[in-house]
Amino acid sequence: MLTAAVIGLGYWGPNLARNLATSPRTELRWLCDLDDGRLNGVGSRYPSSSLSTDYDEVLGDLDLDIVAIATPVSTHYELARRALLANKNVLVEKPLTAGSEQAEALIDLARERGLVLLVDHVFLYSPSVQKMGGIYRSGEIGEIRFIDSVRINLGLLQNDVNVLWDLAPHDLSIIDSLLAREPESVVAVGGSHVANGTVDVSYLHLDYGNVKAAVHVNWLSPVKIRHFMVGGSKKSILYNDLDRSESIKVYDSGVSVDPKHADRRGLLVSYRSGDVLSPRLESFEPLSQMVSHLADCIENGASPISGGEQGLRVVRILEAADRSLEKDGARISVGQ
Amino acid sequence: MLTAAVIGLGYWGPNLARNLATSPRTELRWLCDLDDGRLNGVGSRYPSSSLSTDYDEVLGDLDLDIVAIATPVSTHYELARRALLANKNVLVEKPLTAGSEQAEALIDLARERGLVLLVDHVFLYSPSVQKMGGIYRSGEIGEIRFIDSVRINLGLLQNDVNVLWDLAPHDLSIIDSLLAREPESVVAVGGSHVANGTVDVSYLHLDYGNVKAAVHVNWLSPVKIRHFMVGGSKKSILYNDLDRSESIKVYDSGVSVDPKHADRRGLLVSYRSGDVLSPRLESFEPLSQMVSHLADCIENGASPISGGEQGLRVVRILEAADRSLEKDGARISVGQ
Amino acid sequence: MLTAAVIGLGYWGPNLARNLATSPRTELRWLCDLDDGRLNGVGSRYPSSSLSTDYDEVLGDLDLDIVAIATPVSTHYELARRALLANKNVLVEKPLTAGSEQAEALIDLARERGLVLLVDHVFLYSPSVQKMGGIYRSGEIGEIRFIDSVRINLGLLQNDVNVLWDLAPHDLSIIDSLLAREPESVVAVGGSHVANGTVDVSYLHLDYGNVKAAVHVNWLSPVKIRHFMVGGSKKSILYNDLDRSESIKVYDSGVSVDPKHADRRGLLVSYRSGDVLSPRLESFEPLSQMVSHLADCIENGASPISGGEQGLRVVRILEAADRSLEKDGARISVGQ
Amino acid sequence: MLTAAVIGLGYWGPNLARNLATSPRTELRWLCDLDDGRLNGVGSRYPSSSLSTDYDEVLGDLDLDIVAIATPVSTHYELARRALLANKNVLVEKPLTAGSEQAEALIDLARERGLVLLVDHVFLYSPSVQKMGGIYRSGEIGEIRFIDSVRINLGLLQNDVNVLWDLAPHDLSIIDSLLAREPESVVAVGGSHVANGTVDVSYLHLDYGNVKAAVHVNWLSPVKIRHFMVGGSKKSILYNDLDRSESIKVYDSGVSVDPKHADRRGLLVSYRSGDVLSPRLESFEPLSQMVSHLADCIENGASPISGGEQGLRVVRILEAADRSLEKDGARISVGQ
Repeated sequence: MLTAAVIGLGYWGPNLARNLATSPRTELRWLCDLDDGRLNGVGSRYPSSSLSTDYDEVLGDLDLDIVAIATPVSTHYELARRALLANKNVLVEKPLTAGSEQAEALIDLARERGLVLLVDHVFLYSPSVQKMGGIYRSGEIGEIRFIDSVRINLGLLQNDVNVLWDLAPHDLSIIDSLLAREPESVVAVGGSHVANGTVDVSYLHLDYGNVKAAVHVNWLSPVKIRHFMVGGSKKSILYNDLDRSESIKVYDSGVSVDPKHADRRGLLVSYRSGDVLSPRLESFEPLSQMVSHLADCIENGASPISGGEQGLRVVRILEAADRSLEKDGARISVGQ
Repeated sequence: MLTAAVIGLGYWGPNLARNLATSPRTELRWLCDLDDGRLNGVGSRYPSSSLSTDYDEVLGDLDLDIVAIATPVSTHYELARRALLANKNVLVEKPLTAGSEQAEALIDLARERGLVLLVDHVFLYSPSVQKMGGIYRSGEIGEIRFIDSVRINLGLLQNDVNVLWDLAPHDLSIIDSLLAREPESVVAVGGSHVANGTVDVSYLHLDYGNVKAAVHVNWLSPVKIRHFMVGGSKKSILYNDLDRSESIKVYDSGVSVDPKHADRRGLLVSYRSGDVLSPRLESFEPLSQMVSHLADCIENGASPISGGEQGLRVVRILEAADRSLEKDGARISVGQ
Repeated sequence: MLTAAVIGLGYWGPNLARNLATSPRTELRWLCDLDDGRLNGVGSRYPSSSLSTDYDEVLGDLDLDIVAIATPVSTHYELARRALLANKNVLVEKPLTAGSEQAEALIDLARERGLVLLVDHVFLYSPSVQKMGGIYRSGEIGEIRFIDSVRINLGLLQNDVNVLWDLAPHDLSIIDSLLAREPESVVAVGGSHVANGTVDVSYLHLDYGNVKAAVHVNWLSPVKIRHFMVGGSKKSILYNDLDRSESIKVYDSGVSVDPKHADRRGLLVSYRSGDVLSPRLESFEPLSQMVSHLADCIENGASPISGGEQGLRVVRILEAADRSLEKDGARISVGQ
Repeated sequence: MLTAAVIGLGYWGPNLARNLATSPRTELRWLCDLDDGRLNGVGSRYPSSSLSTDYDEVLGDLDLDIVAIATPVSTHYELARRALLANKNVLVEKPLTAGSEQAEALIDLARERGLVLLVDHVFLYSPSVQKMGGIYRSGEIGEIRFIDSVRINLGLLQNDVNVLWDLAPHDLSIIDSLLAREPESVVAVGGSHVANGTVDVSYLHLDYGNVKAAVHVNWLSPVKIRHFMVGGSKKSILYNDLDRSESIKVYDSGVSVDPKHADRRGLLVSYRSGDVLSPRLESFEPLSQMVSHLADCIENGASPISGGEQGLRVVRILEAADRSLEKDGARISVGQ
């Protein structure tokens, strides 16, 4: 059984703790937070775990296998670096780091030491996203033409990151899991309406060459929408994360060029209306699936679904997006 | 009773004909189309109207008050110009013209001759949009922070215009009816996936200074969505054109700065969850309302809700959007 | 081309007129109504049709093939009888008659004279109901276990019929099209809340032996719901008439007995969660389909989808339902 | 702080345990179940609670204040009786008992000994139902005309109770909280489709004199629906438990008698279309609210929201419903 520590017990840390505690493959050995009250509050649920406000004490545990980091973004790099230097496998909350150089350094360090570096791109472990990926990889929808993702609701404005860094890692990691490569360039526009200077509504456009993707994130929307649409050459997929009973729908409808169909008005295309299929989904908690995958990576050398490289690609996009925002929507190459 | 002619009997012309024929304020005197079959097909429903394939014959009718033009965009200018020169009031299908110079020329001509020039921005005459405008002008939602409009579905690809020129005039005219001014600049990105070179998926970002607006139009979406969201400083409005029973919703929820509420994580804001009100809407056909308004403009000198100036502003935005698309998403000032 | 007359130009008659006028197989020769204003109002759209307030004048037209009756229920019998006696094929608005003896008399008369008697059970000609029927007859859902139909909204209270006679013929004709037989007995409960004595909310339970069906009709519901659920032994169907894009859904989920699965709590069953398929539907107007079918029955001897026998079965159920309502929900055999 | 024991750790007991453990007003002192594995599994989360398979041991704890019973229905009476005899306040999972005589005996016993007897009608403690009740009691919707409740989905068939005893206590307790009295009579129809003899689809009609209520419960529905509609003389309410953002809607629309409005077709009524308001709801877990209310009843003598008398009324309705089912839908007086 792998042993794990959770660092940071704010909003997300307790979820990591719960899943690490209940997984048959991991044991929750440590809980760590600078805030005593929070530490004891969460700690009371795990009487067999040790509590500490001292990160070094945790890293000093020679039997510890996994350090799961759920602290503010600005601290990810330093905490992850120290954990890797202490020969721990690391799980980091998204986004991986606050900058791409830091992400690269972590990737190098993990590689050198033969350690697993996993980013908590949690949606990749959900039944819906896994089903969507499977359908795409089966060839059923053909080539991807475009991707459109909308993730908006009244959200928790934050001091340290804008809405893109807060929400878009979800969309970007899902897009990355489908396309498995970096976009060539991005355009980002946005607005800051509430807290001076912090962008709270933003649109990010990604140019992947033959595929264009768009991500709309918004902390000020009175309605909650989570639509992820994949337009394919044969079929299309809509992933509606808020539809509990039919979150994935595959549309057998489309538009295709049909030169014979032109008329005076100049239509070049034919329309195909078709069936809609909402496939049965497995039922499991994404975090539980991720913990199990983390154990596979450590114990069996499985290839990480959301490894450091993906984390880096997401961070590089966010960096380029910030530069585009600063330049009023200018197109920015990714990863120059 | 005002007398009217409908020019062009393709997709939309028959709707104009029906409303001009049934309005108590107008009489449908002429139907005109170059295609004999179409002319006789539609004409059979209006035995008391005259049919013609000759536009000059129609314009030669000295008792004719209104010429309603529902032909391809590229012909709008020439047909409207000739009608104004013949001293007819003109209703033109959206967009007003294929270019802003043409639109300006029509506006000047109409002004010189004291004629009404109305653009068929039909959504402005719908119960939903009129209710939304009334709520905004009452001050209930406060200052507008952002506008987000999504108008996507499997659409009719066209040879002569891209998806922005086809669909966005609806969104742009609704935005114009709220803000009543021109945006400073635009950014447009898009993709051409089916017919080579014709943009079929596009995102248009409009900078109105303190208000940012975004319009997403898409001919390839397997699902039909028509969401128009107005984020205000006090409340927000969602206009869902596909929700037949509750198309307008006013959300008394929001986000506001609250310096006292900051904590270690740095939150600067407070959230207000509130009631949602879906107001009762009148029930009328937008086109019927527009025909009645056209009569008011002609007979009573009413100020046009969708006059030539609005039509021009929409065309100038579309021109700027095309230039932005050509320059790969560069920011383009409107109306240089 | 068959010639037709429409009798009664209230709410529904004009729809019949329009479809009889535009069908390639029928010609609208007569419009007939006692109210001059209504007659001329509708008549103005059909300049080639004759208008009359005198039913005998219409029946005296020896070249007339079809009499379509859209008058109040209480007049159906007399008007249909006279039309059949004049050797006209008859289409009658639902319900066929106000009583089963009258319905039987019309059936006998039509049979004797070799004339077609069709009831306007219009939903049977809709793409959704035809698709649902096809799926059931293909064997895909197995045996029908139960049917549940809900048809509620703010409705037009009427003096002459209660909510069951007004709305339930739709549900009952759809059920009849699936089961093709008469129920053994019914239980009906209801309430009269607005107009004294007229039942405006009602629940009708039908016992078809191995299949139980329920119909909930309601004129006072603030929300509009039209759900028709068919629970099958293999799959189930939900027909939601208000879902414009996915009105038919086939659920591959279910419950089945599994003796091995029993545990301490005594569960006897296993659950099967499965795909949901929303099949593509044809796009046509039901009334147009019905007019075409009527022509087939007359010209080609096609077997009526909604013939007099089905109309009689519906009326017999409604009669039994009324008796159950009178007896405070007592179980009443149908057709004693 | 009140001390509590949870008896029965199947599906629901762990939820009671969690809320009794986390409430500031109660301490979870005992967990009790006959199954050792279940006991230790749940017990591991509550290290400071004692575990026992011996009910008498629990009741022997003189400092124990509350016994919460979440065992199969058939055991409720005996377990609750023994708890009351041991001078414990009792919380019982719904339905209170398997028969009304047992319920009456418990009520008498609790009254004699001055103990609280609360039934876990958990929906009464939800924000939605409390808001609905508040709106009704404010007079806003006028007199209740009818109630219609639908609670259907693929459900857990059980050996010991039919679908009415399993699901309808939710609906019946909500209805009771609004009307606060017993219905005069019931009619119940239903069908047994899967497990021989166990009714798995049922419709229950309740006659409260001037108010008629209907409850549809179904274990075989492929779709999950939880609609509770209250038709009032002024307004109506729809409580949709599955709509997470707008679970309560108040419709300011209706039908009213208007003698002046009659015309040839005999309409007696006028229609009022109006606003729809979805009020903001508090956000709390119903069970937590119930535990707090239980403490209020014990410590401050608060009047129970879901006391033994309500539990008895629900059981008497279920008994009458069973007799109606046995008699094929015959009308049965309640509480003869």
